[in-house]
Amino acid sequence: MTVVMEAEELSGFLDSEFPQIAGDFVIEEVGERRIRVRLLVGHRHLRPGGTVSGPSMFSLADVAVYLALQAMVGPVSLAVTTNCSIDFMHKPAANTDLIAECRLLKLGRMLVVGDVQIFSEGGLEPVARASLTYSIPPKRA
Amino acid sequence: MTVVMEAEELSGFLDSEFPQIAGDFVIEEVGERRIRVRLLVGHRHLRPGGTVSGPSMFSLADVAVYLALQAMVGPVSLAVTTNCSIDFMHKPAANTDLIAECRLLKLGRMLVVGDVQIFSEGGLEPVARASLTYSIPPKRA
Amino acid sequence: MTVVMEAEELSGFLDSEFPQIAGDFVIEEVGERRIRVRLLVGHRHLRPGGTVSGPSMFSLADVAVYLALQAMVGPVSLAVTTNCSIDFMHKPAANTDLIAECRLLKLGRMLVVGDVQIFSEGGLEPVARASLTYSIPPKRA
Amino acid sequence: MTVVMEAEELSGFLDSEFPQIAGDFVIEEVGERRIRVRLLVGHRHLRPGGTVSGPSMFSLADVAVYLALQAMVGPVSLAVTTNCSIDFMHKPAANTDLIAECRLLKLGRMLVVGDVQIFSEGGLEPVARASLTYSIPPKRA
Repeated sequence: MTVVMEAEELSGFLDSEFPQIAGDFVIEEVGERRIRVRLLVGHRHLRPGGTVSGPSMFSLADVAVYLALQAMVGPVSLAVTTNCSIDFMHKPAANTDLIAECRLLKLGRMLVVGDVQIFSEGGLEPVARASLTYSIPPKRA
Repeated sequence: MTVVMEAEELSGFLDSEFPQIAGDFVIEEVGERRIRVRLLVGHRHLRPGGTVSGPSMFSLADVAVYLALQAMVGPVSLAVTTNCSIDFMHKPAANTDLIAECRLLKLGRMLVVGDVQIFSEGGLEPVARASLTYSIPPKRA
Repeated sequence: MTVVMEAEELSGFLDSEFPQIAGDFVIEEVGERRIRVRLLVGHRHLRPGGTVSGPSMFSLADVAVYLALQAMVGPVSLAVTTNCSIDFMHKPAANTDLIAECRLLKLGRMLVVGDVQIFSEGGLEPVARASLTYSIPPKRA
Repeated sequence: MTVVMEAEELSGFLDSEFPQIAGDFVIEEVGERRIRVRLLVGHRHLRPGGTVSGPSMFSLADVAVYLALQAMVGPVSLAVTTNCSIDFMHKPAANTDLIAECRLLKLGRMLVVGDVQIFSEGGLEPVARASLTYSIPPKRA
């Protein structure tokens, strides 16, 4: 399978589907079953001490898998997250963007599984890892 | 074990620790190893169609376990989430508050495990379930 | 919805589908979206010290959700586990049967989510909790 | 950090700690924070149709992280699994050994997080992925 939506098109799709959050994310690189997404860390993502909040990391992982899926199967508005497991392993660097490296491990007709590692920009060890399942509803006849 | 911080005191603790988000949550009831927390759903929690976003549900589950833990062991600023597994099972009702029912299944010295079911207010079936682990760092001598 | 397969019929179904493991389990009670299943702990489930192994607890949780699903929707050979999250919270009692209390939190046409708490027989605190998703393949025309 | 126990020594450690299951596994390669472990698939791991059971895959993932941990920190009998999240993505090939590729994403003093991909031998796509947390109890003074 090959990529059917490149970064620019994906970015437009995100703007139209999720206007509330699209401005938080930059799609840095798209490949076959892979994507790199940046979270532009702003005040609303922070907790006391400047660390990035757990929900912000969850949100980044969720968006990354969603976009990796869209890149491979074309615009599918109805894909929904059904499960996420996330490990928070290290405290993110203060006031630093986060980078998600996402791979799709399964790209089925109904279920898609993505694996994400999240790094503080420039960091070598992941601050979090997540795996998410998206469900794609069957098309109506 | 008995509750060492009641709803009002917990609410003040949340205000002081997490001022960015404290206004989103109302502690409805505190019991032994149990808590009920409401997410006051506002525009920033919504996705197109009025449904509450996944990160908002994650945030509610995370806060609920954090507060249930604080209620039992007293103010512990350093407790951190190390793991969360969450299942999104039904679409939340549009523009409706969410209610988290949380129980602590393990209350260890170092690790605490909480179980959360999330309902749209008035709904009978949970829209999501989550389990979270918090780690409590050992006290320095 | 009501129960369509009671304990005896479920037990026969387990024997025919999974003869390798059916003898390890006893279905103790079946209700609407609920089941209680016992693991008859034998030598092969133990680790040094007499504690029950993690894979044995996983297996019990998996079987419990599978049977709860079958009880509600009738014999569905093709249901497959797609995800499991499990927390091991306390060491099980030595040489003691385990009891799984399972509830189905979602009973969809394609996805079923079950929640399981596992106790050492007679114990008050769960030794483990798990949530599992089963996928039911669409019927071919 | 460097490897403190190589494959042969690890294998002896597994024999002495878990004699019930040690014969099922072969340690194929050990590296810094990495290990490859083979499950010698036998009759007891199979389900009807020849497919490897879920509990067998869970067991392989669990052993792989345990051994990767031991390889890095030396023999630590008391390390216990506290959490596992596993996605079953494809049906394993019939009657074929499984290969686990494990990396440690976090190697803390108290908590260790490992990530595992499981392949049917010779397969290109993982049949399952798992992440596990081990807790290492603090040493008594």
